[in-house]
Amino acid sequence: MSDNNLTIAIVGATGAVGAVALDLLADRAYPAERIITMASSRSAGKKIPYLDTELIVIEATPDSFEGVDVAFISASADVSRALAPEAVKRGALVIDDGSAFRMDPDVPLVVPEVNGADLEWHKGIVSIPNCTTTPLAMSLAALGQANSVKRVTVATYQAVSGTGAAAVRELDEQAGDLLAGRPVNPREYPHQIAFNVLPQVDDFAEDGYTGEEHKMINETRKILHNAEIAISPTCVRVPVPVTHSESVQVEFDAPMSRDEATRLLSEFPGITVVDDPQASVYPMPAQASGEDEVFVGRIRKDASHPNGLALWIACDNLRKGAALNALQIMDEAVRRGCIKPSR
Amino acid sequence: MSDNNLTIAIVGATGAVGAVALDLLADRAYPAERIITMASSRSAGKKIPYLDTELIVIEATPDSFEGVDVAFISASADVSRALAPEAVKRGALVIDDGSAFRMDPDVPLVVPEVNGADLEWHKGIVSIPNCTTTPLAMSLAALGQANSVKRVTVATYQAVSGTGAAAVRELDEQAGDLLAGRPVNPREYPHQIAFNVLPQVDDFAEDGYTGEEHKMINETRKILHNAEIAISPTCVRVPVPVTHSESVQVEFDAPMSRDEATRLLSEFPGITVVDDPQASVYPMPAQASGEDEVFVGRIRKDASHPNGLALWIACDNLRKGAALNALQIMDEAVRRGCIKPSR
Repeated sequence: MSDNNLTIAIVGATGAVGAVALDLLADRAYPAERIITMASSRSAGKKIPYLDTELIVIEATPDSFEGVDVAFISASADVSRALAPEAVKRGALVIDDGSAFRMDPDVPLVVPEVNGADLEWHKGIVSIPNCTTTPLAMSLAALGQANSVKRVTVATYQAVSGTGAAAVRELDEQAGDLLAGRPVNPREYPHQIAFNVLPQVDDFAEDGYTGEEHKMINETRKILHNAEIAISPTCVRVPVPVTHSESVQVEFDAPMSRDEATRLLSEFPGITVVDDPQASVYPMPAQASGEDEVFVGRIRKDASHPNGLALWIACDNLRKGAALNALQIMDEAVRRGCIKPSR
Repeated sequence: MSDNNLTIAIVGATGAVGAVALDLLADRAYPAERIITMASSRSAGKKIPYLDTELIVIEATPDSFEGVDVAFISASADVSRALAPEAVKRGALVIDDGSAFRMDPDVPLVVPEVNGADLEWHKGIVSIPNCTTTPLAMSLAALGQANSVKRVTVATYQAVSGTGAAAVRELDEQAGDLLAGRPVNPREYPHQIAFNVLPQVDDFAEDGYTGEEHKMINETRKILHNAEIAISPTCVRVPVPVTHSESVQVEFDAPMSRDEATRLLSEFPGITVVDDPQASVYPMPAQASGEDEVFVGRIRKDASHPNGLALWIACDNLRKGAALNALQIMDEAVRRGCIKPSR
């Protein structure tokens, strides 16, 4: 972690991802000049404990970015679209967690372990990939060092915290209601989520794929600088609070052994292989939540294709899927001289 | 439903599948000569309400099958192996829900809508496919009428009732404990199942696939009479009480349109298409549980292959996945003259 003395703004500080970003900064006793917590006017004035002090939430407005070096925005796409250019105008590097700018050709979409060099050409805004994309892109980057990736099929098991803190409360409430024999009244999702699974994350497009599924396709290609990878995702919400899991089949241009795949994944920064199935050791939400790594297990030859490999991924969607990746982008930007304190 | 006056034995009558079998018989006011509920000695003497009477559970022994026309066995593979030959010896047709005989070349593995004709060559035992196989095989049979199926990738979202009634109680208990901040003590699974997902169903083989995954591969090929289909399954347990869901990609020998796939699936007996994603209408456990049909939705071209199709399946694992399929096999066997009342 660099001793950079930056003034850092967290926009959406009262949300699920904002809270984890502050936890991560506090855990590291991050040597910031100042941390400014921002949110909508509704949350202005709220106090958030931070180390041995308190941070007071202020309303995020264009002028609130005066003097800010790095603005981490975790809010709706509309908020990002309104505020990010204002922050850039005032000299900040914006690290945006939303979907507003990810596919903008002028905006790098960065997982530092994979394409940190893309930070070099930023024009003020850097996007963080969607929380299902990051662990998949890292795994494909690791394996792609040996064989070219041709095709990927993936089914996700996504936690409700990807929707936000209210969805986590709703899962708990619904579970309690159903256990007590009371009916549930869905608000965050179109259907009951407790004790159910929903094959819908985000809205549907004309082609029958959801926005989330299109993100996995487009963002993975952009991060890997490979528009040719064929990707078939199905994104599914499951009654889990934190950590997205993914069942993945990868088809290469040549066969890859289980041993080689395990070595490539183990050696890749940010990935930990957890793979002793005979002992029931594999990645899962109850094990990965609160951890910084992308966990990969159940690595095996794909029974349906000679050049195929199957694997299972779990990754804390609030950490490496969001807030941790943002902090790592900030550090990488400092390291590469892409950002300097304004003091 | 035929007016067949059979003497029917339900072995495992106190289990999750046995209970549903009795429910189905009662719902239909099934015109059996007699229904005999059997279980282990531990459950002998228990009374089970049935229509306006009570059935008394007796211990399943070789001699208990005297006079039985059809024995439906839902028990461990060991129990099936011990009792099924004894029941056959005494003239019963055994319909076995377990894995003991499924891949035996002398035992038909039957989904009546797909391969009812295989009943013609039974030698006393007929097996029911595993509860994840049945809905997949039906969907592939429907689509395979037009194009030849080459390859299938599938990720499952399996309910805990597939493990048994104790696992359903454990899910509820763990959910209640976790909501109250109490630790959990897993018994039915190697890890916590509430608010978690486990990429393990059944034991692991040397090749990294589980027994459940091997079942999906081998049983699907046997039912479809096609040893060439390449299948890559990942079987995952989710915190859902009833209904298995599956994310499926199918690769054909030629392209198939969404419209054609929808027509083929809609017209297939036992399948209901539930597919209006823009209105958030798709199959899911909360909708499919307690229903007899296999539900298919999210039908779309596979974004990663010109000859590919993606779909999402949900099916009550205790009904069409088990007890209902058994009843349908019995009816089909009567219709084909493969079984006659002993009276």
